[in-house]
Amino acid sequence: MSPKITGELLRQLRQAMKNCKYFSEPIQAYIVPSGDAHQSEYIAPCDCRREFICGFNGSAGTAIVTEQHAALWTDGRYFLQASQQMDNNWTLMKMGLKETPSQEDWLISILPENSKVGVDPWIIAADQWKNMSKALTSAGHSLVAVQDNLIDVVWMDRPERPSTQLRTLGLEYTGMSWQDKITALRTKMTERKVTWFVATALDEIAWLFNLRGADIEYNPVFFAYAIVGMNTIRLFVDLKRLSDPALRDHLQLDSPSKPELSIHTYPYESVYTELQAICAAHSPKDKVWICDKASCALTQVIPKAHRTPIPYTPLCLAKAVKNESEIQGMKMAHIKDAVALCELFAWLEKEIPKGTVTEMSAADKAEELRSQQKEFVGLSFPTISSVGPNGAIIHYRPLPETNRTLSMNEVYLIDSGAQYVDGTTDVTRTVHFGTPSAFEKECFTYVLKGHIAVSAAIFPNGTKGHLLDSFARAALWESGLDYLHGTGHGVGCFLNVHEGPCGISYKTFADEPLEAGMIVSDEPGYYEDGSFGIRIENVVLVVPAQPKYNYRNRGSLTFEPLTLVPIQVKMMNTEMLTQKEREWVNEYHRKCREVIGAELERQGLTLVQSNPFAEFCNCSAVIIVCIFLIILCVSHSASFVKPLYQQFY
Amino acid sequence: MSPKITGELLRQLRQAMKNCKYFSEPIQAYIVPSGDAHQSEYIAPCDCRREFICGFNGSAGTAIVTEQHAALWTDGRYFLQASQQMDNNWTLMKMGLKETPSQEDWLISILPENSKVGVDPWIIAADQWKNMSKALTSAGHSLVAVQDNLIDVVWMDRPERPSTQLRTLGLEYTGMSWQDKITALRTKMTERKVTWFVATALDEIAWLFNLRGADIEYNPVFFAYAIVGMNTIRLFVDLKRLSDPALRDHLQLDSPSKPELSIHTYPYESVYTELQAICAAHSPKDKVWICDKASCALTQVIPKAHRTPIPYTPLCLAKAVKNESEIQGMKMAHIKDAVALCELFAWLEKEIPKGTVTEMSAADKAEELRSQQKEFVGLSFPTISSVGPNGAIIHYRPLPETNRTLSMNEVYLIDSGAQYVDGTTDVTRTVHFGTPSAFEKECFTYVLKGHIAVSAAIFPNGTKGHLLDSFARAALWESGLDYLHGTGHGVGCFLNVHEGPCGISYKTFADEPLEAGMIVSDEPGYYEDGSFGIRIENVVLVVPAQPKYNYRNRGSLTFEPLTLVPIQVKMMNTEMLTQKEREWVNEYHRKCREVIGAELERQGLTLVQSNPFAEFCNCSAVIIVCIFLIILCVSHSASFVKPLYQQFY
Repeated sequence: MSPKITGELLRQLRQAMKNCKYFSEPIQAYIVPSGDAHQSEYIAPCDCRREFICGFNGSAGTAIVTEQHAALWTDGRYFLQASQQMDNNWTLMKMGLKETPSQEDWLISILPENSKVGVDPWIIAADQWKNMSKALTSAGHSLVAVQDNLIDVVWMDRPERPSTQLRTLGLEYTGMSWQDKITALRTKMTERKVTWFVATALDEIAWLFNLRGADIEYNPVFFAYAIVGMNTIRLFVDLKRLSDPALRDHLQLDSPSKPELSIHTYPYESVYTELQAICAAHSPKDKVWICDKASCALTQVIPKAHRTPIPYTPLCLAKAVKNESEIQGMKMAHIKDAVALCELFAWLEKEIPKGTVTEMSAADKAEELRSQQKEFVGLSFPTISSVGPNGAIIHYRPLPETNRTLSMNEVYLIDSGAQYVDGTTDVTRTVHFGTPSAFEKECFTYVLKGHIAVSAAIFPNGTKGHLLDSFARAALWESGLDYLHGTGHGVGCFLNVHEGPCGISYKTFADEPLEAGMIVSDEPGYYEDGSFGIRIENVVLVVPAQPKYNYRNRGSLTFEPLTLVPIQVKMMNTEMLTQKEREWVNEYHRKCREVIGAELERQGLTLVQSNPFAEFCNCSAVIIVCIFLIILCVSHSASFVKPLYQQFY
Repeated sequence: MSPKITGELLRQLRQAMKNCKYFSEPIQAYIVPSGDAHQSEYIAPCDCRREFICGFNGSAGTAIVTEQHAALWTDGRYFLQASQQMDNNWTLMKMGLKETPSQEDWLISILPENSKVGVDPWIIAADQWKNMSKALTSAGHSLVAVQDNLIDVVWMDRPERPSTQLRTLGLEYTGMSWQDKITALRTKMTERKVTWFVATALDEIAWLFNLRGADIEYNPVFFAYAIVGMNTIRLFVDLKRLSDPALRDHLQLDSPSKPELSIHTYPYESVYTELQAICAAHSPKDKVWICDKASCALTQVIPKAHRTPIPYTPLCLAKAVKNESEIQGMKMAHIKDAVALCELFAWLEKEIPKGTVTEMSAADKAEELRSQQKEFVGLSFPTISSVGPNGAIIHYRPLPETNRTLSMNEVYLIDSGAQYVDGTTDVTRTVHFGTPSAFEKECFTYVLKGHIAVSAAIFPNGTKGHLLDSFARAALWESGLDYLHGTGHGVGCFLNVHEGPCGISYKTFADEPLEAGMIVSDEPGYYEDGSFGIRIENVVLVVPAQPKYNYRNRGSLTFEPLTLVPIQVKMMNTEMLTQKEREWVNEYHRKCREVIGAELERQGLTLVQSNPFAEFCNCSAVIIVCIFLIILCVSHSASFVKPLYQQFY
């Protein structure tokens, strides 16, 4: 990975910062957040401004350019990657380390007195604007909104904003019509005495209208805004997209059932002026709900007295709690995904000894196998396929210049997932095709202990995810180890693979209590820089638990793994596992074999192997040997209550 | 416990709320926070306004009175107590339960349009004022500062503000002169470009000047304010207190060593006008540091542009990290305290069968035994001495009308502590003098598992306490149980028994990372309403740990128990403990025996018992039989690596 050469770009940007055509006075610093106008995590190529200016293409990071300096803030997942992608015009600011200044503190420490710090108000969230503005003001500087984006000014070949075809989702997938979702939203609005709701997050809009797009790679969303009143619904979207009769029918554009469920469509760009018009016609008591993560530009259209900023919207919470149809879809998607991954591992086992499989070809094979599954739409994020030292780059993505060959001598980590029409998957497995070292096994086992501690945890209804984060770390901590990322994120249903408002992290912001029906990932890891990376990730469903007692009738919750891909026993130091942990592994593998085994068979991909396993396999013409399911078969006839190390070599 | 009759008082208060003598217009609601002008947790009798108006005397709670309603918000520790102390004019608002509205939401739901909500600006913290004001304003109401406290208006026999004698502490206790503390504070101020610091928390002022008072029961503090500039020090205190020559010498009032270390003294009440004068003479660049928990009245004296509110002050953090002298003092205090408690349990064992010991007499005996220890000053909080169902009232304090007799049939919980000149203690033990039920033992063992999980945890430097809270609950949660309070609080050194900015709680506000030298409590519990209460509490010191690895050179921490009082083995279901947990208990008891045994001997309070224990005891004239140390002696000659249940009967 060679760094992007940014000297000339920075020179041009600094010239634009001084040019009074863009702002009435020269600005001394310019902030380039990583988001788009919807504060999306993944963004369309036209919105990759932070990557364009500094070269770093990770999913999170903020660049700041001053007259003398250029610095990029990112978190532990990306320290290595960012340092490799940026040239020495840039200083890497490692967030989460004690010695790293915040963006505000850094600006205050280097800016001349009375400086102006510019930012595009559409791509900074209102809450970030507020915090940054307050800090700068208290130090005698000011944060100013520069309407023309200065990166766009220097970005000669910036791509167009995409406008892909929209897909409608029926009740069998969504479990709830968009009309019912609107009605439920209005009930919430009535409860809180709110008269208008502005939806700006793309996944919330897609969820609300039971529509999907492909405007942003990996995320089946489309560029849009929506404003919902008690009697009106306004959808802002490229109007060219609305010609399809099936789509018009789905949205009842031509014959709405009821006037209050009639959708009025407007061009995407007109949201600003429409919202202005709505606010101008405000009654003095009207309150407008908008997420505090919405863009500063749109937020500030709403007069402060009428604005009710919320850390997450009612749609965000409703979307997080999956209904029966969505849960069923997610289960189906995970079964298909597990089949593809089992095929992949079988293929790898066969091909790796030939020395021809690389990180990139393995990722391609994974995609190919997934694409053979029913209702496959695309990947849910760029596959992290990493061998040996590349595994320590937490959000690594193989590129031609970094592409390593898989071998019998190094740990292989693959974190991948897909979008199916019925659900979204995200799974990480870490495997070794030869003999792992004692240290690799030791670390893997700590990570496994953490994974199990979260997955098997029982906790009261109403518990926030951050209270579970340390369970994932306790075994690592006890040996002085740790990992610099959260333990889990919410997962959408044929939507964004990362979604709020719940998760499992030491970070506590916008962390809503877990409730039955929510779906999160459980993915502790360990990364030995320059050597290997380990992560074990399942997507898990929050389900009610029935422990012995029920304190104050609060009820208890636990997790049910949706991901059903075996965990490599060879990587475990089974001596380090407690009896309970062994039982968890055995029960998990029993379920993998039962559910995925049946699906492999159904798909005609059954297992055939030498004698001991034959009993498990109803022989078939198509023979795919799955390394992991073989491991499971070893003790098929043995009792699962035996200690693990007796079952699995 | 019979409730306070409040009908007439509420009538008078509501009359005052309508009286334009106190505020230009009638107010529709009046908020009565529990704090004083220093936001102290424990308060002087003259400041017990919330207790006066509603009858509830717990340490935390806010009362709000409107024309029609009266409601009190408090947390899980106090649900039972508050419901018993208040009459039916009052509604109990159980904080932490999902269905309980916040104060703001409740006010908004019941107030007529455009209401005025009054509060005394001296006893509401600036951050609380801000949040409350914002919420009310957004709903069309307003929060107004009523300068005369309306409770004082209706409180005929309100006591005087105390002004007790001040005590100076030498370097042997404090480890650092007040002059060095001032210099260290100024270094922090310079780093952050701050020119003035306003100290309002009583314990911070006591710590800063190495002085102690007795103005507030249990807390060795005195009413004062301090304002520290880069060259001046202003101390606001009842000037009558400064006549003692030793005190004048300690503060160098008559012959300061350097001008910038000369203390200027002012009457307590003049802080408002002095701060006004300082702010009036401000240079435009002057910044004033004040805690965001300081009173709204004092905070608003400082013009907003100059004000730098911080969630905790540099004194608060410096005070939390104990130096070697303070740690040594805390260790000594805990040894003396353990001796007193061992004596108490021996006495209880002897006296309980006679049927004459009550919750109150046991508490008195504990105080008497503590008071016999060197440098005893007083209790550090009201002793919680509770039998059977009273144990389920988390912050129970025995009163004549609730006083139960200790028996062989019920669980006894005693949570107590003392102030010694060298340190502050806080310890809870739960014991049974007969045969505990299987359920009592089961619950006790879950609590013990939680206690050990925290105490033995190893975690990275920089970890915040809230990340450890779930360790204390995991065993309870697994069985569907929980407790509705935090797991630990900071503990001062001959200062407040509850102090910030660190702690161990599911609540995450103002939670600073743990570092070596901090001292916190570890006190999980379980409360079976109407039946029994269990809590196991040690005060523990944060110390460096040396695990096998040292990820990114961050270093690791763990806890060392300062409390050395045995934990009753009879209450444990040892079958439920893991090998590691058994080893922890054995090692803890080994240390208790070694350290407290030696001190018992030194004090001539050695143990004599029938044969098996004789070897442990160097016979002495004074014979006190300590039930707990006897338990420890049972296996004195046996190896401690044996499973616990083999060692102890």
